[in-house]
Amino acid sequence: MNHIPSLNDIKEVHERIKPFIHHTPVLSSASINELAGCEIYFKCENFQKIGAFKARGGMNAVLSLSKEEQEKGITTHSSGNHAQAIALAAKTVGTKAYIVMPSNAPIIKKNGVKALNGEIIECEPTLEARESTVQQVIDRTGATFIHPFNNYDVIAGQATATLELIEEVPNLQVVMAPVGGGGLLSGTALATHYLLPEAEIISGEPEGAADAILSFKSGKIEKAPYIKTIADGLMTNLGDKTLEIIRMYVKDIILVSDEEIIAAMRLIWERLKIVIEPSCAVPFAALLKQKERFAGKKVGIILTGGNVDLGKLPF
Amino acid sequence: MNHIPSLNDIKEVHERIKPFIHHTPVLSSASINELAGCEIYFKCENFQKIGAFKARGGMNAVLSLSKEEQEKGITTHSSGNHAQAIALAAKTVGTKAYIVMPSNAPIIKKNGVKALNGEIIECEPTLEARESTVQQVIDRTGATFIHPFNNYDVIAGQATATLELIEEVPNLQVVMAPVGGGGLLSGTALATHYLLPEAEIISGEPEGAADAILSFKSGKIEKAPYIKTIADGLMTNLGDKTLEIIRMYVKDIILVSDEEIIAAMRLIWERLKIVIEPSCAVPFAALLKQKERFAGKKVGIILTGGNVDLGKLPF
Repeated sequence: MNHIPSLNDIKEVHERIKPFIHHTPVLSSASINELAGCEIYFKCENFQKIGAFKARGGMNAVLSLSKEEQEKGITTHSSGNHAQAIALAAKTVGTKAYIVMPSNAPIIKKNGVKALNGEIIECEPTLEARESTVQQVIDRTGATFIHPFNNYDVIAGQATATLELIEEVPNLQVVMAPVGGGGLLSGTALATHYLLPEAEIISGEPEGAADAILSFKSGKIEKAPYIKTIADGLMTNLGDKTLEIIRMYVKDIILVSDEEIIAAMRLIWERLKIVIEPSCAVPFAALLKQKERFAGKKVGIILTGGNVDLGKLPF
Repeated sequence: MNHIPSLNDIKEVHERIKPFIHHTPVLSSASINELAGCEIYFKCENFQKIGAFKARGGMNAVLSLSKEEQEKGITTHSSGNHAQAIALAAKTVGTKAYIVMPSNAPIIKKNGVKALNGEIIECEPTLEARESTVQQVIDRTGATFIHPFNNYDVIAGQATATLELIEEVPNLQVVMAPVGGGGLLSGTALATHYLLPEAEIISGEPEGAADAILSFKSGKIEKAPYIKTIADGLMTNLGDKTLEIIRMYVKDIILVSDEEIIAAMRLIWERLKIVIEPSCAVPFAALLKQKERFAGKKVGIILTGGNVDLGKLPF
């Protein structure tokens, strides 16, 4: 897709990927609502295949390629959930996934890619090394590179989580998602804007990776003043495509501290009885931080994933 | 109810409690199935009200009382989930719950009872003190005592979890539940026996609380040789009512070590992305221990609850 996805595009994408992804449940908790002073519906993408929403975007990007392109294989660089998303999608269409991973990527992530038959190509842990290694793969194999977020097919895929949420829970007044590279937030914003034009789209971002809020204000892609946060999925800068959509449709980005993220994460574990990663607790932490703003409202929150190292919990 | 619940009884109980409990989801995981070599359907009572299946039995026992009995209040002694179940049920019918708790009960459990308007009466942490304190409550208030498991109304309530599981997942060949006092296992066994007479009912028990397996074999209520296990919900001995049902319909009880329980619990957290307490990992640990026995079968497992102290995880 070479344009900002329309509502029709998103619906088509949903039909395309439906057979290969989970329709994840929406959970709520009376005690969380009481505590938050509003009505929250959590879309549980931690139950998605590969344990994260990234399965949606990766699946759509690969299914959208021509047969010839698919046959030559898919490549990307990622140390996180996008790697597994691409490996899963490649396996689904019966082709090869060449995943460039930094040599210091966690073993658990490498094993996840291997379990999906992905071929791992290790490189130095720098962006330059990652990009040049991907280029070598492309030169050698003719594989197609799929960017983790700055790609309209990926964005349209991520938008389908919000499509499902809005179909299941009517009359949401606010929809929230975290922001890293902005693929999920862009998709969330588009689906919400099309289906609930009156609703507010609000994001949360860690204080220790506060690039999106700067970019959102300046209109240029900015770097974070410093990087230090437990929300390891949100350290990436925006891309030009995601920045444009976010500037158009997102109302606000709220910064939260790691203490606030951990407290919100713990509440979700304790009350909803589900395992989520720190990154997905960020919007809920933002809501708790500015309770008055959400008082009495009906709020949807995308919980992005549940891939967390149980041996290294912050509580 | 003064007889072993019939299928009709269990169905009536289900209709009675339905408006006041959650219909919990059934989850499964391709990677867990691959690893276990069979097809497992987890009935997620960790998502039940108060975070445990006990809400079912407590609700039914209280709803089954006459208006006059309800008005005088309900009492029980418990340091665990049954305390909250009774407090919730009493609140639901608008009466008082007098909960006798040992002075060393965890603060989090006491707070759970208080949040449901239960009145806590503290006593020494011995069975004698618990029973005599309950008797004082009864003498003073006329409240009705509801036993946590050796009570047919409670057993019929717990059976409704299996009723829902069997309605949702056809043709189960094995149904599993852990055994503490045996209320859940009795209910599970009855519902399975009535609806799937060909299916096997198999339980798991911690090596460090191995009383039920001895009672199961001897036909008398036996004590565990020693008590030392992480599965703190399973330390209780059977009662005469639960022992009778278990002897009739349960095929086997498999012992597992704490290491096996922790490994099974961790697998469920990692793959299903849900928070469960150690006690509910016991049947899955038993299945993993005797894989050959379950190979290729369709197995239902009741996950009993998710009330776990996140500050004291075993991993």
